[in-house]
Amino acid sequence: MSDLPTPLSPTERTRITRLGERGRSEREELLAFLAEGIVAHVAVDTGDHPVALPVAYGVDAEGPDRDGTLYVHGSVAAGWMREAPGGTVCVTVTSVDGLVLARSGFHHSMNYRCAVVIGEARLVESEEERAHALDLVVDQVVPGRAATLRPHTRKELIATAVLAVPLHEASLKVRDGGVGDEPEDIEAGTWAGVLPLRTVAGELEVDPLTSAPVPDDVAARAARLQP
Amino acid sequence: MSDLPTPLSPTERTRITRLGERGRSEREELLAFLAEGIVAHVAVDTGDHPVALPVAYGVDAEGPDRDGTLYVHGSVAAGWMREAPGGTVCVTVTSVDGLVLARSGFHHSMNYRCAVVIGEARLVESEEERAHALDLVVDQVVPGRAATLRPHTRKELIATAVLAVPLHEASLKVRDGGVGDEPEDIEAGTWAGVLPLRTVAGELEVDPLTSAPVPDDVAARAARLQP
Repeated sequence: MSDLPTPLSPTERTRITRLGERGRSEREELLAFLAEGIVAHVAVDTGDHPVALPVAYGVDAEGPDRDGTLYVHGSVAAGWMREAPGGTVCVTVTSVDGLVLARSGFHHSMNYRCAVVIGEARLVESEEERAHALDLVVDQVVPGRAATLRPHTRKELIATAVLAVPLHEASLKVRDGGVGDEPEDIEAGTWAGVLPLRTVAGELEVDPLTSAPVPDDVAARAARLQP
Repeated sequence: MSDLPTPLSPTERTRITRLGERGRSEREELLAFLAEGIVAHVAVDTGDHPVALPVAYGVDAEGPDRDGTLYVHGSVAAGWMREAPGGTVCVTVTSVDGLVLARSGFHHSMNYRCAVVIGEARLVESEEERAHALDLVVDQVVPGRAATLRPHTRKELIATAVLAVPLHEASLKVRDGGVGDEPEDIEAGTWAGVLPLRTVAGELEVDPLTSAPVPDDVAARAARLQP
């Protein structure tokens, strides 16, 4: 077997059916985008209907599942967490990068990046892998933070459920650039443009019960999210 | 029949199963939150597995479906748009409002608002309703913009599919405030805090093919999204 990484979208399930030219094929680009995200939406079939819910996530490109592992976590008491294990789930990470304000309603669009991962959700049984996954989830929001915290207690590990999804079947779709308008709308002189969007941090709200200095990892994260 | 609006989460499908105290019951609060959002994730059952995909949306609180209508649109060529009509879909709008950086990994969290609407997706057959829905989708990203644009052409209306979902079965879950830590972690003097997050606009990128002034609706939208 080859050691080359599997191309993205190796199956029909993650093949981009529309505007395929927006699809990216490099696994590195997927991982770089996933590294930036803060929240994912996980779609789970409840039997009666699908649900999409926001979740924190973490990525282990060298994880035990095919082509690496994407972890999402939730409470053992969460309804969707009871439905998901063993079934096929979809984990979607989206960044809205701009409003594309075209000359017609039809050509209005958004600049965005969207990663979709589809695969069988494996309930992480091992406490060791679960602790590792939870550290990745913490490091996803503030890189380096997990190593600064006390270890998870057994009670905490028992109260937390983690799903592992293989990164094998995935796609990354990107829309960027300017407007794409009809020639007659351009000739008519109508205004058009793109309003870029990004996520920024406000002033850090330090918990009143601490007088400890702001940790370096938190300060670095806040600095990278400055307006 | 009463004219009072239905309370949120009237059925088990949108009942919040975990941390129910975060659930809001006021329909006005749901509508106010939906009015702010830029993107939704729609979960659709493809038969084999669920998918969650980002979509633009619009809201008509007085729309023809029970308790009002949430519209999402897509290309008639999109794969999920062929699967969704007649089936039950879930439309989720999420705002991540802050990173809750607690004293333990376990108590790390996010401040967020999340609206979930579950209902049967009706394919909008009437061109008139479809044009109205597309105007709402445009006005969702830039309020007042649809009225400034030329009318949709028949060709455009034929190329666009719109799904209507009743606002009847919906929930709004909110986490806000500070960290919730274990007493022993607080006593240990560990730092904790919340890093607020918000979406802001960058510099407006005017299309080089126009010399028209920036429309008032766009200028107002950009101003409200200033860092």
